[in-house]
Amino acid sequence: MAIMSWVPVPEGSDFPIQNLPFGVFSRRGELPRVGVAIGEHVLDLHLLTTNGALPPAYWFASGTLNSFLQAGPRVWHSVRGDLTRLLTEERERAKVLPALVPLKEVRLHLPFNVADLLLFQTSLEHATNVGRMFLPPEPEREPLPRIWRHMPVGQYGRASAVAVSGTPVVRPSGQLRGGEVGPTERLDLSAELGYVVGVPSSPPYPLGTSAFPDHVFGMVLVNAWRAWDLMAWEARPMGPFLGQAFLVSVSPWVVPLSALNHARIKQPAQDPPPPGYLLEQDVTGIGVTLDVSLNGTTVSRPEFAGQYWTGPQLLAQSSVTGSPVRTGDLLATGPVGDGGTLLDLTWNGRDPLKLSGGERTFLEDGDTVRITANVPATDGARLGFGEVAGTVYAAVES
Amino acid sequence: MAIMSWVPVPEGSDFPIQNLPFGVFSRRGELPRVGVAIGEHVLDLHLLTTNGALPPAYWFASGTLNSFLQAGPRVWHSVRGDLTRLLTEERERAKVLPALVPLKEVRLHLPFNVADLLLFQTSLEHATNVGRMFLPPEPEREPLPRIWRHMPVGQYGRASAVAVSGTPVVRPSGQLRGGEVGPTERLDLSAELGYVVGVPSSPPYPLGTSAFPDHVFGMVLVNAWRAWDLMAWEARPMGPFLGQAFLVSVSPWVVPLSALNHARIKQPAQDPPPPGYLLEQDVTGIGVTLDVSLNGTTVSRPEFAGQYWTGPQLLAQSSVTGSPVRTGDLLATGPVGDGGTLLDLTWNGRDPLKLSGGERTFLEDGDTVRITANVPATDGARLGFGEVAGTVYAAVES
Repeated sequence: MAIMSWVPVPEGSDFPIQNLPFGVFSRRGELPRVGVAIGEHVLDLHLLTTNGALPPAYWFASGTLNSFLQAGPRVWHSVRGDLTRLLTEERERAKVLPALVPLKEVRLHLPFNVADLLLFQTSLEHATNVGRMFLPPEPEREPLPRIWRHMPVGQYGRASAVAVSGTPVVRPSGQLRGGEVGPTERLDLSAELGYVVGVPSSPPYPLGTSAFPDHVFGMVLVNAWRAWDLMAWEARPMGPFLGQAFLVSVSPWVVPLSALNHARIKQPAQDPPPPGYLLEQDVTGIGVTLDVSLNGTTVSRPEFAGQYWTGPQLLAQSSVTGSPVRTGDLLATGPVGDGGTLLDLTWNGRDPLKLSGGERTFLEDGDTVRITANVPATDGARLGFGEVAGTVYAAVES
Repeated sequence: MAIMSWVPVPEGSDFPIQNLPFGVFSRRGELPRVGVAIGEHVLDLHLLTTNGALPPAYWFASGTLNSFLQAGPRVWHSVRGDLTRLLTEERERAKVLPALVPLKEVRLHLPFNVADLLLFQTSLEHATNVGRMFLPPEPEREPLPRIWRHMPVGQYGRASAVAVSGTPVVRPSGQLRGGEVGPTERLDLSAELGYVVGVPSSPPYPLGTSAFPDHVFGMVLVNAWRAWDLMAWEARPMGPFLGQAFLVSVSPWVVPLSALNHARIKQPAQDPPPPGYLLEQDVTGIGVTLDVSLNGTTVSRPEFAGQYWTGPQLLAQSSVTGSPVRTGDLLATGPVGDGGTLLDLTWNGRDPLKLSGGERTFLEDGDTVRITANVPATDGARLGFGEVAGTVYAAVES
């Protein structure tokens, strides 16, 4: 029988007892602290450590998850076990009730301090689309960069650009084709997921794929906004730079890997097989369906399970040279499937999307993008990540 | 007449009274704290705030410069003024003497926590060399990427890879040509300088070039080690990634801009003129001569003054899209002049360097690279940055 919480969880909620995602919240006039979402409430973990419901711990008085992330899998699992017990056993209700705060009364913050931001491109469909759009046609050849099946291609991004859902998306300016300066005319969303690192590596030793569950705590929803015209101009020879990651919005909730394991789906073997440091015993995807909506209309439902490169492979790639992997590193997957960007969906603006409010190729000022995600739970219920949302504002005068 | 300190400063020292660079040091068994180098000593600033020689301040009890960096130019200048007075006026000697610690008794630490690392390429000579080596020859055209004179080209790097001088350089492994995996065979140094940001920006507003002195505190020496074979394989289409910044060694001392202003040298106008957000009233270089030594032999003395793109332009470029500039951002200039890498010096390995211990194209295990820098001081003395040094160790088994 499905486990149930004594906390009421409405049908269709992202946050049933099987999820227990971690975030940082504050009530008006109070400092931010760590909480876990359950139904329409956030559970104040700091309060639970001070009233004895949870063992004493310093992790939860903080305005960021970093200390808890760094504490490692033993702590993650023991806290998850305790919370499951507290939220399912009736006799705990009295002790826990004072720590339940309605979500609508809190402000949600960036859940962790980002150490390094790594931007990968893990979708074969997106990479193929980009290749078809921008590489010269060569019928003999797959429209992919030559290294694409050898390693997860990626770039470092700007950690300062990571912000919590709801942060205004101010249209960025920069150099467009030919060095002309102005606001981007090809502002896009990029619907992604991101892996959140908890336990640091021990440099100069790299982390193998099997180290993944010992080092990575969970996942967030990501919208790594793009300015394709800035990127196109700046991309050669050093790769995209400022247009790639001027703002990276993330969901306020980090969903633990433990809540996602049941949704693993075995994938076909990678062809050609990747080099040894990227090999995995079993290549599995995670059955997450994203929902991308633009001004209230769903424009895409990309499936995450089929991404070519997996989380363990991104971790191994990010540490192969021995550079330190740190608590708070965010490994973003790049656009999911073949519908993670308007670039994919409109074929670089050729085929506008028809929305109730008019057509769209790229984003216009005033547009609101909302990304949610749906994961089947063990018992046929569902889990979610909350949302990552943002509204586009006109460029500022510089 | 030149100002003199009552602290003895040996002839040729990097640290006369005109310099006063900031760093973080510790004595055996004590926590790291902030200090300033003078001659062969480090001045314990925390002690000076507790014994009343300096006004009370919380910045110096810290194991990092970040709080002081964030405090801004008024504080930087007032502390500099106080220190100059304390170190030149004889009557202050008794109060200051207990705070003077011989440099040889301390350990020097990474001076600040790096927020974002930005890797620019500001040397026209280096860019031209790379173009000549790797771009197909086209006699009609300058061997530069088309955007090169329009903006400072750059990339984000890995902040976790920044480490203090002396950190072992473990030869990194990764994918080489064709996806083969192994230790780099083209390990190189990259002699650079880096600008250290103090005061954050106010997003979404970008910082103009004129904001430079209000936001940037000083400069460090940088060795951004390279693995050219990893970079060559991974570079298309997203740009160099793991081979570009697996370890970025920096000097333990941050030299304040105030100590460098007298060494400014007017530069010829940039041609073509850059777009408005990159324009400067006066384009000035800074007269720093680097000294790059390999196993004790000087192999290059690149001149920094002629770098094409200036610090104010790097700051403006890094914030043009409105992404937050933060305390601790490190803007590295890329290799200085045309002798900042072995790639430049050996023409990609074609012309080996003759050293006393044998020939070198790229770095071998056991090699030690030491970079120092020399700036004329106002009165004909010299200033320096200390050194950034590193010894190469064999790759680890993964």
